[in-house]
Amino acid sequence: MDPDSLSKAFVEHYYSTFDSNRAGLANLYEEASMLTFEGQKIQGSQNIVNKLTSLPFQQCKHTITTVDCQPSGPAGGMLVFVSGNLQLAGEQHALKFSQMFHLMPTPQGSFYVFNDIFRLNYA
Amino acid sequence: MDPDSLSKAFVEHYYSTFDSNRAGLANLYEEASMLTFEGQKIQGSQNIVNKLTSLPFQQCKHTITTVDCQPSGPAGGMLVFVSGNLQLAGEQHALKFSQMFHLMPTPQGSFYVFNDIFRLNYA
Repeated sequence: MDPDSLSKAFVEHYYSTFDSNRAGLANLYEEASMLTFEGQKIQGSQNIVNKLTSLPFQQCKHTITTVDCQPSGPAGGMLVFVSGNLQLAGEQHALKFSQMFHLMPTPQGSFYVFNDIFRLNYA
Repeated sequence: MDPDSLSKAFVEHYYSTFDSNRAGLANLYEEASMLTFEGQKIQGSQNIVNKLTSLPFQQCKHTITTVDCQPSGPAGGMLVFVSGNLQLAGEQHALKFSQMFHLMPTPQGSFYVFNDIFRLNYA
């Protein structure tokens, strides 16, 4: 699978899991994983999922606008840069967001999220 | 210098150079450096600067809204995630943008840009 297809597949999997079963995102992070969410720094799979599942909304729907990717270096990592819209249940207007992931390979031939930075883009 | 201060200093240096002397950005990239600019992939310091200096505007001013950073792994790299506004000369409204940099250490104790992904965030 080429990097562009792989990053698109990851992004689709990530946001469909986020929108349907946020707790299921735990499998995508490891203990060393880092999330910076609107400036707040969180480390570790369980802490990250605790943060994501405690966000002050229940239902949401991410719509992806752009996905860019680049290899991050000799360790086989991949940088994935996403822009899109986040529609919260009961809200009239979608929020714009940008997010970047640094995916690192696992010994099993898959990837996990080592770095994750999320920002809303206020109008 | 702590990572947050270092990334803020880099970001201020990068955009003040971009806004005053775009060709001077060549020093921040190396031959292996990658830029994805609005989906277009470019590699190598000279090619990157050729792209940036040939953008269809002369004067511009970046204003930074947020800067987030995380270490990217054992090689000593640093991920820097920026959101902000780009004001072009003669245009009424500023454009919103998001950009990420992956900074890698040089043998001289400085950093160069290994990865660079830029996107405008259209309203």
